Amino acid sequence: MTLSPGRRHLHLNVNIFQSGIFAGAWRAPDGDPRAAFSLDHYIATARIAEAAKLDAVFLADTPVLTPDIAHRPEYALEPTVILAGIAAHTSRIGLIATASTSYNEPYNIARRFAALDHLSRGRAGFNAVTTAGPAAARNFGLDQAPAHRDRYRRAAEFVGVVGALWDSWDDDALIGDSARGVFADPARIHAIDHQGEFFRVQGPLNTPRSPQGRPVLVQAGGSPDGIELAAAHAEAVFSAAQTLDEGKAYYRAIKSRAAALGRDPDGIVVLPGLSTVVAATRDEALERLNGLQDLIPLRYGLDRLAALLGIDADALDPDAELPWDLIGPAKDVQGLQTFFTVTTDLARRERLTARQLIRRLGGGLGHRVVAGGPADIADTIEEWFTAGAADGFNLMPDVLPSGLAAFAEHVVPELRRRGLFRDDYAGATLRDHFGLTRPPVARYAPDAAEVLVR
Amino acid sequence: MTLSPGRRHLHLNVNIFQSGIFAGAWRAPDGDPRAAFSLDHYIATARIAEAAKLDAVFLADTPVLTPDIAHRPEYALEPTVILAGIAAHTSRIGLIATASTSYNEPYNIARRFAALDHLSRGRAGFNAVTTAGPAAARNFGLDQAPAHRDRYRRAAEFVGVVGALWDSWDDDALIGDSARGVFADPARIHAIDHQGEFFRVQGPLNTPRSPQGRPVLVQAGGSPDGIELAAAHAEAVFSAAQTLDEGKAYYRAIKSRAAALGRDPDGIVVLPGLSTVVAATRDEALERLNGLQDLIPLRYGLDRLAALLGIDADALDPDAELPWDLIGPAKDVQGLQTFFTVTTDLARRERLTARQLIRRLGGGLGHRVVAGGPADIADTIEEWFTAGAADGFNLMPDVLPSGLAAFAEHVVPELRRRGLFRDDYAGATLRDHFGLTRPPVARYAPDAAEVLVR
Repeated sequence: MTLSPGRRHLHLNVNIFQSGIFAGAWRAPDGDPRAAFSLDHYIATARIAEAAKLDAVFLADTPVLTPDIAHRPEYALEPTVILAGIAAHTSRIGLIATASTSYNEPYNIARRFAALDHLSRGRAGFNAVTTAGPAAARNFGLDQAPAHRDRYRRAAEFVGVVGALWDSWDDDALIGDSARGVFADPARIHAIDHQGEFFRVQGPLNTPRSPQGRPVLVQAGGSPDGIELAAAHAEAVFSAAQTLDEGKAYYRAIKSRAAALGRDPDGIVVLPGLSTVVAATRDEALERLNGLQDLIPLRYGLDRLAALLGIDADALDPDAELPWDLIGPAKDVQGLQTFFTVTTDLARRERLTARQLIRRLGGGLGHRVVAGGPADIADTIEEWFTAGAADGFNLMPDVLPSGLAAFAEHVVPELRRRGLFRDDYAGATLRDHFGLTRPPVARYAPDAAEVLVR
Repeated sequence: MTLSPGRRHLHLNVNIFQSGIFAGAWRAPDGDPRAAFSLDHYIATARIAEAAKLDAVFLADTPVLTPDIAHRPEYALEPTVILAGIAAHTSRIGLIATASTSYNEPYNIARRFAALDHLSRGRAGFNAVTTAGPAAARNFGLDQAPAHRDRYRRAAEFVGVVGALWDSWDDDALIGDSARGVFADPARIHAIDHQGEFFRVQGPLNTPRSPQGRPVLVQAGGSPDGIELAAAHAEAVFSAAQTLDEGKAYYRAIKSRAAALGRDPDGIVVLPGLSTVVAATRDEALERLNGLQDLIPLRYGLDRLAALLGIDADALDPDAELPWDLIGPAKDVQGLQTFFTVTTDLARRERLTARQLIRRLGGGLGHRVVAGGPADIADTIEEWFTAGAADGFNLMPDVLPSGLAAFAEHVVPELRRRGLFRDDYAGATLRDHFGLTRPPVARYAPDAAEVLVR
């Protein structure tokens, strides 16, 4: 069946988390320890996603090595270069990469994503993150990361500058008149003359306005500062929630805050993370889940859980509940506040031992894990979508590419039967897939208009 | 014929300068005004180069828009994303991108080029430039670019840090033992703990050591500071010379300075820029040259020449010699000293008018332009190569891809007949093509060894 016009439609990204979201994905019979370093792996996964008509490929990132590397691949390869490789072997699927607003210059980021948007003919998205923690800071000349609040203030200014640079060329500034020898019209290219708290950027960008006008701006923070940033600027949000109630509360918070800021709430697509373990039947899926849970190194799970909770790993007894007296409130956590909250809420609600919690999270960081047959997975997707907890999901398959192939084979047809998901792309750009309009050029500052290229 | 083992062999890169090096390339009958924004254009050009067994594709870059945009496409798209797209459609040709050491963080650059090296299976090269001029500086929070000397001091520290980060993983640090669940060995991954004048970087990189060990380091400066940087660090040099004597002097300067620093002079491949206008016969080539010279907008040529000379464009009479009394010495030029010197030397030597000079340079910046049939072009290449002025060339075809296709069709077979150029690739990596060894891991500081991941 085809989608009914005017009806809300589900959006599905695939998060290519190296070999898969499960901590032992690279150890699975169908996993590959070296997949994370191979362009073929990323292209093969993206092509499965495109064949299933998913909205986008999503790549997380952080500019620091963590101790997790002992047990699993992590963010090895910078995502925009991976996505450029994918762009060369796909034609429709969106391409969203993560970059840090704390450890980059806005001119460089604006340019790189504009390039990706040109090369992919309008499929780029920029997921702006603020990058917590001292280890990353020490790769960039700092002893500690700036405070949470300061990182978000910088991020807000950063995305403002990036947006202004993306708008620094009028849509018709590129002339290309061979006969007259006029390539571009400098009068339609504008300096931005930004002078702010964190940045001074004259502009203009040296890239014509890109096919989408602006690459799609994505944000992933769930803290109050993160919600504020997303509501003000984001066009898609990658969120985290373990329960339908958490999902609904977050969804309402984002949409109502956006409305309060004068934005159309439909201009922000809310996509919770969803780790999936899929098979033709529920029993097969649960068997697969159990096998993958057995591959999560316990040491890895305990270390990672302890780091998230802000406690020493020795304080965790695998077979006891979490040591609640040692665990502080969310607001004291440096970064990843959302994951802290959803993880502790899950553990508390179900009185899970550390070992059970690690298995339930698939060795992941707090995104919801669902295992089941086609109807099971479609049911929970439909429930969240219709209940107002999600506009779709950032899928995090257990193992890649097999887990995505299983989702495409078993779940996508079921979602189509229910009239929830597209049979084919209706447009060519990521904005088309997300139902977002192409923004007109907005002049950053009134007095910056008509400033010639210098 | 096949190449004789032990004999010196010619190296040829193609510099994909948007639509071609001629200022009017985009206006040529076979040009395309939008080519510079199309991945297809870059891939098509690179595939011609790979079919001809060239060493590498080279992409220049600068993070600022210049007034040239009125008349021709310029550095619109960030090069590493272009090269990642090319990597996905080629298998052997090297991939060299330019990035600024003044306006990037070494951790980000080390990571991006390591990613490109992984994705391309060992074909990446990093051309480190220092980025002159106030306009670029104003995109990065500065009013003026740092002084020439300071930019080169920062560049030297920058490439040192990047190299240390590329070596921060031992070659055998990635274990991938599925049975034991050991992905990497943290004891074989080392912090670099760099604390220098410009940077503090703890490391390690979050990317395993790449296929080439280190991406090939390329440098392009011809000033005394640039020669010093190249002699100390570079493995390939993109130089500029108009005459054989200039070429020989530069070649000797680089090789002898490298030897004085204790390096093997054969470990630096010297590649002058060479703009080519090629056809089946000399007459056809000269006709093509004349047509392309007619497409250079005079206004553009005068503006660009004036900027290079550090004078006002109004001071240039198209049909008179350069106003020598207004033109200062090379050392007073901020950036692009090499181009200043070779251009003024050419104009003085041949007593060219401004208009003649602009036509001779093809609207380019000072690289030598040669036009001719297969034997003409092969003759000059062979002369420079055998006289010790070049190990090969960074080719800058007039129009892309047609000018490269003509070179591949007419000149490459002639070079092969003369035993100068390979029939096929002997290896798979850019280091293989350039005859450079894969460097062993060098520990940055003795006391940094055995420092665990933090």
